Amino acid sequence: MGDLLSDEARRAALVELPGWREADGGKAFTRTFTFRNFNEAFGFMTRAALVAEKNDHHPDWRNVYKTVEVNLSTHDAGGITARDVALAKKMNEIAARFGI
Amino acid sequence: MGDLLSDEARRAALVELPGWREADGGKAFTRTFTFRNFNEAFGFMTRAALVAEKNDHHPDWRNVYKTVEVNLSTHDAGGITARDVALAKKMNEIAARFGI
Repeated sequence: MGDLLSDEARRAALVELPGWREADGGKAFTRTFTFRNFNEAFGFMTRAALVAEKNDHHPDWRNVYKTVEVNLSTHDAGGITARDVALAKKMNEIAARFGI
Repeated sequence: MGDLLSDEARRAALVELPGWREADGGKAFTRTFTFRNFNEAFGFMTRAALVAEKNDHHPDWRNVYKTVEVNLSTHDAGGITARDVALAKKMNEIAARFGI
């Protein structure tokens, strides 16, 4: 789980991750989720936080009212690993339950 | 609650708000809270989120593992109002329960 993804593997991963794109020169994946209100935005964060804590892999994220901007990267590895892909996928699943 | 604080009133408020300082040319108050781990950082955010939602006044905040960087401003008023001071005070109270 700790290996950096190749350029090719990152691009293949993004195809399966609607809404996400590369940031920081390919060292991070980013997505901004826009919900209906703060209740939903923080509800999303709470569910994602439990997943992050369970997997011991945490997002860099910013919340402003109904938006949540997420940046994922594996700092120990210096870029994107399978752990980021897994968390991004899980976040999309959680957001989907809010109709996002 | 909707009136912009004067420069003097802002400075007086900050005296009562340890850890906070002005940002954005006096249009915001900012503080970075550093906890022991993600559990505590997100626990703090959860308690603060309930207060924010109850008062219908929400922070702009970023969480990276054990840190929470908070920016408070009343956008409708274009700067700091009593609502920001109240939320900053409440956040300090919540953080204090984590020994911060």
